[in-house]
Amino acid sequence: MPDVLVIMGSRSDEETVDKACEALEQFGITYQKTVCSAHRNPEALYETASGAEGKGFEVIIAAAGMAAALPGVVAALTPLPVIGVPCKSKNLEGLDALLSIVQMPPGVPVATVAIDGARNAGILAAEILGVKYPEIRQKIIDYKNSLKQ
Amino acid sequence: MPDVLVIMGSRSDEETVDKACEALEQFGITYQKTVCSAHRNPEALYETASGAEGKGFEVIIAAAGMAAALPGVVAALTPLPVIGVPCKSKNLEGLDALLSIVQMPPGVPVATVAIDGARNAGILAAEILGVKYPEIRQKIIDYKNSLKQ
Amino acid sequence: MPDVLVIMGSRSDEETVDKACEALEQFGITYQKTVCSAHRNPEALYETASGAEGKGFEVIIAAAGMAAALPGVVAALTPLPVIGVPCKSKNLEGLDALLSIVQMPPGVPVATVAIDGARNAGILAAEILGVKYPEIRQKIIDYKNSLKQ
Amino acid sequence: MPDVLVIMGSRSDEETVDKACEALEQFGITYQKTVCSAHRNPEALYETASGAEGKGFEVIIAAAGMAAALPGVVAALTPLPVIGVPCKSKNLEGLDALLSIVQMPPGVPVATVAIDGARNAGILAAEILGVKYPEIRQKIIDYKNSLKQ
Amino acid sequence: MPDVLVIMGSRSDEETVDKACEALEQFGITYQKTVCSAHRNPEALYETASGAEGKGFEVIIAAAGMAAALPGVVAALTPLPVIGVPCKSKNLEGLDALLSIVQMPPGVPVATVAIDGARNAGILAAEILGVKYPEIRQKIIDYKNSLKQ
Amino acid sequence: MPDVLVIMGSRSDEETVDKACEALEQFGITYQKTVCSAHRNPEALYETASGAEGKGFEVIIAAAGMAAALPGVVAALTPLPVIGVPCKSKNLEGLDALLSIVQMPPGVPVATVAIDGARNAGILAAEILGVKYPEIRQKIIDYKNSLKQ
Amino acid sequence: MPDVLVIMGSRSDEETVDKACEALEQFGITYQKTVCSAHRNPEALYETASGAEGKGFEVIIAAAGMAAALPGVVAALTPLPVIGVPCKSKNLEGLDALLSIVQMPPGVPVATVAIDGARNAGILAAEILGVKYPEIRQKIIDYKNSLKQ
Amino acid sequence: MPDVLVIMGSRSDEETVDKACEALEQFGITYQKTVCSAHRNPEALYETASGAEGKGFEVIIAAAGMAAALPGVVAALTPLPVIGVPCKSKNLEGLDALLSIVQMPPGVPVATVAIDGARNAGILAAEILGVKYPEIRQKIIDYKNSLKQ
Repeated sequence: MPDVLVIMGSRSDEETVDKACEALEQFGITYQKTVCSAHRNPEALYETASGAEGKGFEVIIAAAGMAAALPGVVAALTPLPVIGVPCKSKNLEGLDALLSIVQMPPGVPVATVAIDGARNAGILAAEILGVKYPEIRQKIIDYKNSLKQ
Repeated sequence: MPDVLVIMGSRSDEETVDKACEALEQFGITYQKTVCSAHRNPEALYETASGAEGKGFEVIIAAAGMAAALPGVVAALTPLPVIGVPCKSKNLEGLDALLSIVQMPPGVPVATVAIDGARNAGILAAEILGVKYPEIRQKIIDYKNSLKQ
Repeated sequence: MPDVLVIMGSRSDEETVDKACEALEQFGITYQKTVCSAHRNPEALYETASGAEGKGFEVIIAAAGMAAALPGVVAALTPLPVIGVPCKSKNLEGLDALLSIVQMPPGVPVATVAIDGARNAGILAAEILGVKYPEIRQKIIDYKNSLKQ
Repeated sequence: MPDVLVIMGSRSDEETVDKACEALEQFGITYQKTVCSAHRNPEALYETASGAEGKGFEVIIAAAGMAAALPGVVAALTPLPVIGVPCKSKNLEGLDALLSIVQMPPGVPVATVAIDGARNAGILAAEILGVKYPEIRQKIIDYKNSLKQ
Repeated sequence: MPDVLVIMGSRSDEETVDKACEALEQFGITYQKTVCSAHRNPEALYETASGAEGKGFEVIIAAAGMAAALPGVVAALTPLPVIGVPCKSKNLEGLDALLSIVQMPPGVPVATVAIDGARNAGILAAEILGVKYPEIRQKIIDYKNSLKQ
Repeated sequence: MPDVLVIMGSRSDEETVDKACEALEQFGITYQKTVCSAHRNPEALYETASGAEGKGFEVIIAAAGMAAALPGVVAALTPLPVIGVPCKSKNLEGLDALLSIVQMPPGVPVATVAIDGARNAGILAAEILGVKYPEIRQKIIDYKNSLKQ
Repeated sequence: MPDVLVIMGSRSDEETVDKACEALEQFGITYQKTVCSAHRNPEALYETASGAEGKGFEVIIAAAGMAAALPGVVAALTPLPVIGVPCKSKNLEGLDALLSIVQMPPGVPVATVAIDGARNAGILAAEILGVKYPEIRQKIIDYKNSLKQ
Repeated sequence: MPDVLVIMGSRSDEETVDKACEALEQFGITYQKTVCSAHRNPEALYETASGAEGKGFEVIIAAAGMAAALPGVVAALTPLPVIGVPCKSKNLEGLDALLSIVQMPPGVPVATVAIDGARNAGILAAEILGVKYPEIRQKIIDYKNSLKQ
């Protein structure tokens, strides 16, 4: 069974992140959801991210706002593909989180989606898993067809 | 043999895109490189993108500048994961391409990397293929270790 | 009878788009209004846009938000003048849609109006049709005079 | 014979504007080119813009940089469609000109193209004239086909 | 009696503009307030601005939003000092109006104040008139002292 | 004899500031030019600015870059009208200086011109002095007429 | 007893600033809170800032919005470390205050925190005092540990 | 002997960072300089940052560009005050690094200086150490006095 690790930087991002989880459920993908801040609990994040592959996770979704270091730090600690979700906070319309996540230096990519684009993070995780799992690929095909209605 | 389709919107993006290709080569991943504009040749792009899965491609990298519709249109036409590379052009420091690629609406994600971040697009493609192919996963692990030196 | 094709990327843009339609009605111009996303239903958009000239449409208005590929893709598929309306969405104040629409590469222009400027899109369509139809030209002249009160 | 009026706000914009003229020539459209600033010579601009329709011009292209009032003021003084070209100046990457041109209030549209996008202004003028003149429409169709090579 | 001409581009800017008028009243400066759009009624603006000096006005305050051409066009038509007030509209946080007003080309300055900074426009008019009228200068001195409480 | 005080925040702004001085000379206005930083020498700036009116200066031009506090601090210390010139520095295209100067709080206006718009600062000073001195007013009228050629 | 001076530019910033004070209290640090504008009362600010070291203050927190000159001017007048808090006002999402505070020229630093980041200003003050006072250092250690829960 | 730890995210930031070191030397402060990326070598950064206090460092300066997670991650791992230097890279004028560093969430501050403002980072470190060491305080006082010449 494929499995996605969903990490949010703050409990306040949970409403946003749940849209990723709903998308994963729609494609029959299991996930674990955890709160782990790059700034408030770096040791736990270190363990969570560096241990993710060994626990069998195949994709990581990381969501954070403001100076959103979380997705990049997770990407630094794992060979798994990491999807970053910039969360809008009170100021700057989410531009701070977007640039903090997408502008990664050469060597350590984060697959960034739109500001508050958590639903697309879930779908992208499914597309990535669809490379390996034909039944998920088929669900993606069916889903994209359903969008046409 | 895994295979990545690399699409650029304009021949002028080739120097940027070649950094993605170098990364793919580094991980032993084969690719095809093509120029196909969403705005100058939409029919060819339609065929290229909608036929990519059938031809056995597993990941698509799409690079474009300015009003960079290419990655999103490709993502609309394929169930494969699509990685978008915003290319800096003469004005606005690449912000136009970044927002045109990353701000996708719900349903059709593009995995966006940094402005002119083509090397990371290649690495991200390898990470995605590493979900399926253990030997690529191992190369990613080795590569990330090599970054520490 | 001149006729304008009004395409919106999402049903949620309809309130904005209706201001374009009101302007068209004010100038006695008929129109057809359709929802057709560049990202959710690219095949239908392909047919809609490439068939517009053959069906007798003379101008196209295309409205979309976020990574607004719609107007540019339509412009790629038709010789008709295409007017683009950037729609403000939840984040970034509409700047994403504006840059995604106005920053078209050489060869494929989109006549862009202000963020949420759908009323002006309708008036611009009338000005364009006024080049051909003297009675619409006269209505434009009368309308611009009426603005002075 | 259709005829386009090309107005630039400053002689320093001429290199940019000449790309619009080249496009017009490519489509067999005649034009007059003039320098007339909204800020340095408002009376002349008033006469030029308000007299354009009477002299038989069918489309106006207006190019300006910085606080680019020119296209909007021209649009205020004519029932002809006005295409605005934001010119990049030394600072702010052309964002000042873009916003000064595209963000027109309801009632007076300017058909805005990309920053320094003068070539597209010429093509857009041709598309607009193609609504009336079948031979220009045909040239647009041929041109868009030629882009596919 | 010194006299200031206060021009707003739209009736909707009146609430903002009234803060300038309150400041003028506070310094005992008379004013006339008028609505006159650079885009909807350019002829009237032409007359209003070019006639202002002859009617005895000594300073002009011009307020407008979006592609705010009004202050610059007024400055083009008068030798009087022109104070520009960028008004915030629904999108872009007033940045469009600010850049449209402040980024004037060499030769035609507009004395720009903050976004929605109409009160400061009134005070600046008083400071300018204080150069000529000692009693207004004294009121400025008293006012600035009062700010210290 | 009218007299303008020209303050620059750094010797490196002198090339920019000299364009203001040239404009003043063109209108026959005398000036004193000084370097005085709000951040490196606040006491000297305090004396310079608070003593300017007593020494007979009638207008102040203040130019600075980056976090450009100079014009606002000068405005706080004088009843004279203060014209602010945002100077572009190495980063951010001068946007930092522009916002630091124009976004003054209610009570203390700075008459802001364009980024690196020192020439317009000189002309604006002349327009302000033209309120009091008919011969300067006449020169402004002549100058604006000369712009029409 | 260590002591922090907290200066706000306007009474309207008090709600924001109180979050800095709560943080200081949490670490057992005393403080004095004062309202003193760089623009409305520069003399008082001059005295307050230049006298702070002599009165035994060890760190200064300065909060202001819009063209936020306060922190930089304070930094110019004291050898104490100055922490700057950009306050969001009605427009521009706080970007004006951020750039006005952080973009200080060489020689006079301001330790800038996030927009409306007053709580972090209090914690940063504690970290600075922790360099000297072991008991505050210990509280910082305990606090950072507590964040992990 | 006080000691500052200077961490840069990439060897390419060294030219920038050396301006901080020169400032430290000017104030007689010793330092160690190291390259340690949050994204390429997170384990080493973890050790470096969490061990800094134990090794006797009193202040940390952290410089990075693009998605600059380094200063925030260091701040998460130490009770020492951390000064962040945003480094300009090829695109976006350093705005990405600035927002990635300054917009820290509540609990973990980074004392941010200007884009490429490394010299000020060194001076700020001296000001912080001046809280504890009277001889450094005196040097700061002397230095700020020297700026007045």
